[in-house]
Amino acid sequence: MAVIDAKMVAALRKRTGAPMMDCKEALVETDGDMEKAVDVLRKKGLKAADARGERDATEGQVFSYVHHTGKLGVLVELGCETDFVARNEEFKAFGRDVCLHVAAFRPRYLAQQDVPAAEIERERSIVLEQTATQMAGRPKEVIEKAVDGRMSKFFAELCLLEQPWIHDDKKTTGAVCKELVAKIGENIRLRRFVRMELGG
Amino acid sequence: MAVIDAKMVAALRKRTGAPMMDCKEALVETDGDMEKAVDVLRKKGLKAADARGERDATEGQVFSYVHHTGKLGVLVELGCETDFVARNEEFKAFGRDVCLHVAAFRPRYLAQQDVPAAEIERERSIVLEQTATQMAGRPKEVIEKAVDGRMSKFFAELCLLEQPWIHDDKKTTGAVCKELVAKIGENIRLRRFVRMELGG
Repeated sequence: MAVIDAKMVAALRKRTGAPMMDCKEALVETDGDMEKAVDVLRKKGLKAADARGERDATEGQVFSYVHHTGKLGVLVELGCETDFVARNEEFKAFGRDVCLHVAAFRPRYLAQQDVPAAEIERERSIVLEQTATQMAGRPKEVIEKAVDGRMSKFFAELCLLEQPWIHDDKKTTGAVCKELVAKIGENIRLRRFVRMELGG
Repeated sequence: MAVIDAKMVAALRKRTGAPMMDCKEALVETDGDMEKAVDVLRKKGLKAADARGERDATEGQVFSYVHHTGKLGVLVELGCETDFVARNEEFKAFGRDVCLHVAAFRPRYLAQQDVPAAEIERERSIVLEQTATQMAGRPKEVIEKAVDGRMSKFFAELCLLEQPWIHDDKKTTGAVCKELVAKIGENIRLRRFVRMELGG
């Protein structure tokens, strides 16, 4: 069994921002394997983040961005639980990045549940018809699965939380927000955004 | 008859920003009275501004403001006819001031016609009842005039263009915008605004 010394704990703590005792436990659990310990902590953090999702985020910040041409402006409201976190540099950096993301990727809604039912219905019927034509003769379940996949794409184009993140298109904006919750250890909610384009 | 010299024309021009020939004509018309000439030019300018109101304002700028607490943000879209004016300092100063105004005075709509009919109806019926009680026995026309007056106040509280201007409560925001049209000589339109307050 590997010896877990203070140096390793400190290194893991620096990488993950997790509390010292959690770092030590993770290293014991993984027999001193630093990479595995990072994974253990991340999973633990995300689980806690899910639980935190229910907690109130009544503090926060409003962020703004105006493109250098002056023809496009964005406001974003990012909520957190304490004013302490509202002044945290990573929190603020995320708020600024969400503004840039909204400017560049033009989301129309925040989350899937914000898309009007009529708009979803219309899209689904179009997609269903296209898919049924393209996959004529295939089993109904296969076609329906394909339709679901295309609908996910539709939401990923429309909704901020479902869009691929501006700095890493392997993750959604919502997933990046959740990672920040895990890291900071406090609920953070992307509450709303406005994108105002000249004449738009 | 007073002699109109170049110095007077230049002084009037400096005060009003009107073209040189207009300044000279105004001074001739008012027999060299500088104050009256200012009025003549202002009336002329506002008349032209009214005519310009119909012209397209497809250029412009989006302005933003975030309060130092970070808990309140504003976006304002100000339209004009040419990109040249969009870079004009007075135009930009007005845009920034409208942001401050919106932050401070919390308008809910841009113009009177943007207030939903149901909201107007509700307010009118309340005001009518109150006024009829307070002025019981007075002629119907008198009561109706009082109701109209109170409804104007209602719109002046709700609508950005009808609100008393942040820097001069003797004028409405809409009137200040029109004055700027007269001064700059190009149509300028306050197109829309967003006010985002934390948790609001």
